[in-house]
Amino acid sequence: MDLWRAMGLEGRRVLIIHHDDLGFTEAQNRAYLALGLPTGSVQTPGAWAPQLRAHPGDLGVHLTLTSECDVPRLRPLTGGASLRDSEGYFWPTREAAWQHVDAGEAEEEFRAQIEALRALGVEPTHLDTHQGTVGRPDLLAVYVRLALEYRLPCMIPDVVEAPPEVRAKLEAFVAQTPLPRVKLVNHYRADPATRRQLYIDLFSGAGPGVYHFIHHAAVATEEGRMLPSWRERQADFEALQDPEVKRVLGEFVPLTYREVRDALRRYL
Amino acid sequence: MDLWRAMGLEGRRVLIIHHDDLGFTEAQNRAYLALGLPTGSVQTPGAWAPQLRAHPGDLGVHLTLTSECDVPRLRPLTGGASLRDSEGYFWPTREAAWQHVDAGEAEEEFRAQIEALRALGVEPTHLDTHQGTVGRPDLLAVYVRLALEYRLPCMIPDVVEAPPEVRAKLEAFVAQTPLPRVKLVNHYRADPATRRQLYIDLFSGAGPGVYHFIHHAAVATEEGRMLPSWRERQADFEALQDPEVKRVLGEFVPLTYREVRDALRRYL
Repeated sequence: MDLWRAMGLEGRRVLIIHHDDLGFTEAQNRAYLALGLPTGSVQTPGAWAPQLRAHPGDLGVHLTLTSECDVPRLRPLTGGASLRDSEGYFWPTREAAWQHVDAGEAEEEFRAQIEALRALGVEPTHLDTHQGTVGRPDLLAVYVRLALEYRLPCMIPDVVEAPPEVRAKLEAFVAQTPLPRVKLVNHYRADPATRRQLYIDLFSGAGPGVYHFIHHAAVATEEGRMLPSWRERQADFEALQDPEVKRVLGEFVPLTYREVRDALRRYL
Repeated sequence: MDLWRAMGLEGRRVLIIHHDDLGFTEAQNRAYLALGLPTGSVQTPGAWAPQLRAHPGDLGVHLTLTSECDVPRLRPLTGGASLRDSEGYFWPTREAAWQHVDAGEAEEEFRAQIEALRALGVEPTHLDTHQGTVGRPDLLAVYVRLALEYRLPCMIPDVVEAPPEVRAKLEAFVAQTPLPRVKLVNHYRADPATRRQLYIDLFSGAGPGVYHFIHHAAVATEEGRMLPSWRERQADFEALQDPEVKRVLGEFVPLTYREVRDALRRYL
């Protein structure tokens, strides 16, 4: 089945504007609350997650297996030894996580992260993945199984570093579910100085499809400027308030994961 | 034995200036790094603790069983069910912690918090207690036992809410150890507007003794102003840079917990 067709979105230009990494710092939550855009996902191990308690937005769980900044650094919610480095924090890189993480311990951690958002009075509308760490085939299988069990759409990351036959098997596994696939747009690393124009050009020229547009907006407060990529995050925050960017994005059909979830649940 | 006498401090006016709650927010760490005063204690469940990795200061473990702010909120490092509220965080008040916390689970948590600082390359110089939660008699016993085991001085909180006979027993237990007792000075709740003068008056008039002067300095950044008591914390930050306050504090013999620890270890 094709969920987009069932939702009447086939052949249209559809946009989910997605705020990654909420709950991690005050600066990122501040940007989310200031922008007023509904969709994003929360790192529930982050100490700022409770600021979004019972928030009526369109919030998912940003499933986390890495903590890439020197500070602030996050720890797993569960006890799995394979989830943590020698200091007790999540692994600092995706590669280190892929080298060490046990899929069973990751599943327990993912469940705890999902339940942590629910405990804050937020029913998740979707799942996604911090730094694409679910791209390891066995982790992707866990992730898709959890999405089906919780009846939630999940953002399937583009890059699965796996041999072609493993990848084909995973693709087939996802394809036999009603989980929809999005076109990912992610320019986290793009030059902050030209980011506004990049977004204008990119979205002006985009054809039909359902786009999941990842941004990382944060306010450049003293705390926010401690993030290594604060200029990139500030550029997203400013671009999303730019009149021309807003005009170009406004030409898409806006979509929330809540709508996707509710449509999906008719088939799950 | 009397450690102060052994250290040649008897009859003198001696001062430990102690920064509480490090590692919790960027604003508090920022104040610690700006003031340049060596002594403080770290909440190792805080996401900003790694900023103090291998710091050469005089740092102890601020043993934590409560997380009193709405945000940021901290979770226990260990799995004990009695340590957490329904959302999975530390209890919001000392009273709730005292009602629920199991002493065995608290001990496991305290050990994990101590080891977490060591994992960051900081050998703790002392132990103290966030919000005085070790004041419950069985928790105080755990706390003193851990101090003796780790051969660390520990700040014994003033208030032990217990029947007189229990209190007398605990006092006798502490008195038979070589752990030294300090005179606590804590004016966390005092009016920020008059705090500078309060400190001047208080310390100008202080007689001989070893004072453990608790302050809560934080910089009033956007993140810092999210703390309910940010004005009190800002007042401490400003007072400690005030020339007259510095002059008055400068009339004491300065003492670090590192010196106390090293002296204590001759008797432990």
